[in-house]
Amino acid sequence: MSLISLGTMAFDELETPFGQSGKVIGGSATYIAYAASLLGVDVKQMSIVGNDFPLDELKSLNARGVDTEGVQIVEDQKSFFWKGRYHLDMNTRDSLATELNVLADFNPVVPANYQNVDFLMMGNLHPLTQKSVIEQMANKPKLIMLDTMNFWMDTAWDALVDVLKLVDVLVINDGEARQLSNEYSLVKAAKKILAMGLSTLIIKKGENGALLFKDGKIFSAPALPLEEVFDPTGAGDTFAGGFIGHLAKTGDVSFDNMKNAIIVGSALASFCCEKFGTERLKEVTVGDLNARIKEFVQLADFNM
Amino acid sequence: MSLISLGTMAFDELETPFGQSGKVIGGSATYIAYAASLLGVDVKQMSIVGNDFPLDELKSLNARGVDTEGVQIVEDQKSFFWKGRYHLDMNTRDSLATELNVLADFNPVVPANYQNVDFLMMGNLHPLTQKSVIEQMANKPKLIMLDTMNFWMDTAWDALVDVLKLVDVLVINDGEARQLSNEYSLVKAAKKILAMGLSTLIIKKGENGALLFKDGKIFSAPALPLEEVFDPTGAGDTFAGGFIGHLAKTGDVSFDNMKNAIIVGSALASFCCEKFGTERLKEVTVGDLNARIKEFVQLADFNM
Repeated sequence: MSLISLGTMAFDELETPFGQSGKVIGGSATYIAYAASLLGVDVKQMSIVGNDFPLDELKSLNARGVDTEGVQIVEDQKSFFWKGRYHLDMNTRDSLATELNVLADFNPVVPANYQNVDFLMMGNLHPLTQKSVIEQMANKPKLIMLDTMNFWMDTAWDALVDVLKLVDVLVINDGEARQLSNEYSLVKAAKKILAMGLSTLIIKKGENGALLFKDGKIFSAPALPLEEVFDPTGAGDTFAGGFIGHLAKTGDVSFDNMKNAIIVGSALASFCCEKFGTERLKEVTVGDLNARIKEFVQLADFNM
Repeated sequence: MSLISLGTMAFDELETPFGQSGKVIGGSATYIAYAASLLGVDVKQMSIVGNDFPLDELKSLNARGVDTEGVQIVEDQKSFFWKGRYHLDMNTRDSLATELNVLADFNPVVPANYQNVDFLMMGNLHPLTQKSVIEQMANKPKLIMLDTMNFWMDTAWDALVDVLKLVDVLVINDGEARQLSNEYSLVKAAKKILAMGLSTLIIKKGENGALLFKDGKIFSAPALPLEEVFDPTGAGDTFAGGFIGHLAKTGDVSFDNMKNAIIVGSALASFCCEKFGTERLKEVTVGDLNARIKEFVQLADFNM
């Protein structure tokens, strides 16, 4: 089934304890598209870039079957740019530079042949931007999934609460879940957040895995314990892309299949952390992914 | 099979966001004994208490089949006392009072009929005290397990490293694993720690579950997401007691059975958090435990 991947396509520059990346291609929609396209899903990309964005990067996505008709190219502006430095824990980070550039005026227009997709994945953007895309769909997709962050909770609370009413699956991290619900217990947080109009909540816990809340049930997925987290940038978006990619590939949005989708997303995210930017994701094959999924099965398996 | 439970039996006084406990019975050996005795294991208790320790508490353990011959009662001193206040996250805490009392001169003497047990569980104590107990055993137990804490890494490093060479299973939390290994990555930390002479390492991650490292393999166990953590005091000791209790009950120290033992320990620890002190553990039945274990199976189950 087809999937819209909405979000940023951008330049990142990363400093980690392992080295400096220089300018690399990043952005939420980039990672979502790489993850979902590996699964053979018909991905329709929606984003905005400036005149400095290499066309080869679009071609590289096209070669994976990604439709880039929905990527606006603004000829007289630059692409979104973020520079960050990771702390030794590879979990916390400081923003060293954020240049919105084309993103400041991003008003996505859903192309005609995108308007009947079955799955809509919206990376972190202003909630009003996310809502405008939902409203442009000719038919309500089978599943709408949304990522957001603490910044919008601080600056656009009403718009965020408003868009959540139109969404099926929200994916956020544990700190964001606590902020959104004003509850420390993630179980209590999940109850409050689901009551905001969602059917499903995924709480990402980084190296501690993820929790899936749906239909009064909980699934706890492990993260693969990694010897080295080289660069976690994009791991959350890769996770989301793998998750919704698996749902779109199978057409099954049941709780049981979402559990498998979390494992697929987690496996892809573990690859993402192994090199700077999208470098590792570009190399990974379906065989690599299946082998990694087997590692997850072994990691979590017990027989009581 | 039989099991020595070595550690403190003490008074705790706890302040949590939910209320104040007043003086309650605590101590590592207490929690270990409650957990392991529920599983029907022949528990032999080794500890030290003062003249203020209620004899009813010993009788309560005896009624569960726990042998308390190895509990020294010092008539002219008081029992160990700890007072602590938990922060809102119920994970970090401040010590408000620590009165060693009888613990200052604890030189455990292993009774004759304890010296051939199959399993030896040593709660957090000075590494020299732990070593003296190992050296008193007539035969090397089938499995020796040890808990410790950052305090001994700071103040008794050499003695700690020395006792680890005699131990099979070390159980510590993630912060302690990082301190002991000077590695942030838990995979790297585990490799370094296992090389100190252990066959097995368990890293406890509180609400994020636990990792088991053995024979080059890793098992990741979830923690039960709790609506309310009422009082986490003793949860780590209860986990350890449930873990080694399951090994002692089954007599099987394979990796596969250790995975199940981690689930048993985690299930018992989740009960421990529901009330102050040992209150909840005293109530829990085998039926309650089996039902809780089923919750863990469902929580972690996926089918890829």
